[in-house]
Amino acid sequence: MKLQVTQENLSRALATVGRIAAGRNTLPILSNVLLSTVENRLRIAATNLEVAMTETIGAKVSSEGSITVPARLFSDLVNNIPEGVVTLELSENKLLVTTEQYESVINGVSAEEFPVMPALKDGKRLIIPVSILKKSLQQVVSAASSDDARPVLTGAYLHSHEGQLYLVATDSYRLAEKIVQPCKEAVSLLIPASSLHDILRTLQDDTSDVTVAYDDQQVRFSVADIELITRLIDGNYPDYRKLIPASFQTKALVKRADFANITKVSSLFAREAAGSVTIKLDSESNAVSIRSVASQLGENTARAEAKIEGSGDVTLNSRYLLDALGVLGGDEITFSINGKLDPVVLRDPADKSYTHIIMPVKS
Amino acid sequence: MKLQVTQENLSRALATVGRIAAGRNTLPILSNVLLSTVENRLRIAATNLEVAMTETIGAKVSSEGSITVPARLFSDLVNNIPEGVVTLELSENKLLVTTEQYESVINGVSAEEFPVMPALKDGKRLIIPVSILKKSLQQVVSAASSDDARPVLTGAYLHSHEGQLYLVATDSYRLAEKIVQPCKEAVSLLIPASSLHDILRTLQDDTSDVTVAYDDQQVRFSVADIELITRLIDGNYPDYRKLIPASFQTKALVKRADFANITKVSSLFAREAAGSVTIKLDSESNAVSIRSVASQLGENTARAEAKIEGSGDVTLNSRYLLDALGVLGGDEITFSINGKLDPVVLRDPADKSYTHIIMPVKS
Repeated sequence: MKLQVTQENLSRALATVGRIAAGRNTLPILSNVLLSTVENRLRIAATNLEVAMTETIGAKVSSEGSITVPARLFSDLVNNIPEGVVTLELSENKLLVTTEQYESVINGVSAEEFPVMPALKDGKRLIIPVSILKKSLQQVVSAASSDDARPVLTGAYLHSHEGQLYLVATDSYRLAEKIVQPCKEAVSLLIPASSLHDILRTLQDDTSDVTVAYDDQQVRFSVADIELITRLIDGNYPDYRKLIPASFQTKALVKRADFANITKVSSLFAREAAGSVTIKLDSESNAVSIRSVASQLGENTARAEAKIEGSGDVTLNSRYLLDALGVLGGDEITFSINGKLDPVVLRDPADKSYTHIIMPVKS
Repeated sequence: MKLQVTQENLSRALATVGRIAAGRNTLPILSNVLLSTVENRLRIAATNLEVAMTETIGAKVSSEGSITVPARLFSDLVNNIPEGVVTLELSENKLLVTTEQYESVINGVSAEEFPVMPALKDGKRLIIPVSILKKSLQQVVSAASSDDARPVLTGAYLHSHEGQLYLVATDSYRLAEKIVQPCKEAVSLLIPASSLHDILRTLQDDTSDVTVAYDDQQVRFSVADIELITRLIDGNYPDYRKLIPASFQTKALVKRADFANITKVSSLFAREAAGSVTIKLDSESNAVSIRSVASQLGENTARAEAKIEGSGDVTLNSRYLLDALGVLGGDEITFSINGKLDPVVLRDPADKSYTHIIMPVKS
């Protein structure tokens, strides 16, 4: 193998792909990246056995070949050499990295020892614009559970329903649902949230499309020169739609920044109460007020102007409320409640495609 | 106590002073800040028993008083409330913090329980411009030791010598010496490096002066509305001047950025060797080259153009070399060596006031 690439392209690709290899792995080869020539290009690949990511960059290839090298050392080296042409040359299992100023030799491991992800059976595919997939992932994925006790909840569920493609995630304390786009096919993919976080990190702000190809076992996201393949989670997603209330006794329309601010200040006094804060909607004073009491520290009351229909109160975990206010778009939000134990619904009045639900804390 | 201050001033003062209180302390009251009215101003104070810091800000005081409150909670609260006027009012040991939107009550502890730092005996004083003290601290203090086994080396030594004021620090592996300014008095102050880091963090880029007042036990730095008092370290500073070589067999003049870059890349391959890299100066090729070998990872050679007198090589800890190159000013540096075991000297050819010495590693 002998080829030339630019430091800029190699550095960018290693930053994207290298993250997958970054963790401490039980299999030492998983902390390596696989470099291989593909026609007149260089492919950089990494996997943690759940996810495999590749990026292919332009190169001037003089002779074909492949090798794996430690991702961390190779990235650090490439990041610290100046912009310009870098020559990569293989001599037995040693990778020679040469620029005008530097000559490095990195001891590699044969490409044959690198695990191969099963190929995707030629299956179905969806096309989603980058900007729409990015927004959907940002609004939904963080609501998934990180507790492996219920594997189904560690995924986000991409599925079709009445002609629309939905993405939904819940950890049973809160739920986020996004209508992604119209969809004619029958889709039902339960995708690990951790893999979707990896996808999200690779999506740049651009106007291109993401191709989502899938079979029964795996899904592959392709955008520009990057591909990510991940396994699907086995299991039936809970029938969450019945959880979403159709009508509300009490409803507030409030500025999102104001609500986030008073929640944040109140949460400072909610540490003893595991973050619980009580939110009161009062149609007389047209204000949302939040109260938190910490017997040791003190107490806090904060209020924001709002348009209120009906009156009532509910106790929520302030962290979940801050998360929801963080991912909702728009200047204003609606905050709708029924009884003290019924799900609370947050929406952007200007964008009905997104619904965020938080379960109250018993108070 | 009842007074009004602006959120902006209070937030800034808490950010400065609160750091001193931030750590986990064995004495719970040390994680509080002391608030007290001083004429028509509010003084905010914190101490960790080694250092005490105060900042005084403008206030509209309606009634005098003092209280201590948890630094972290109070800072978080003030940072998260909007800009504008904040009312602070004491009711028994409870501090009421009120703005238009917020009403908070913070449970405080009586000011009488707050430890009082001994007052400075009216002593001598030095005046140093902020910009000069800041540069001196940046270039010197990080060379002090963090090992309490030799307390004397955990300080930086501010002292007079032949009509100049010097600041010096060493951990016995490297040494940094700065000529601060001309000085007529006899000065000999061994100041904890940790306190000098605290001072450094409070110094803004401005054109005012720092007043350094001292007696046998303590030193006080005053700048604008901020005061920091710290105890002095007891003991005799080593006679370091005899360590600085007067002449050199081999000398390189090299661009600082280039030297830092090749050192950084080389250090990646020096992890197995505890960071050791071998620097070779060669007057024939007029180049500085660095070589590092890691039996497991690989090896690296990097070179930078330089003007060289004589030839030779020396093995250094790459971390110390990077630290030195980081604090040296200017575009170029001189790198001067004698034998393989003799101290290496780095200087900025355009600023003779600063000397940085690194002891070689036996190779």
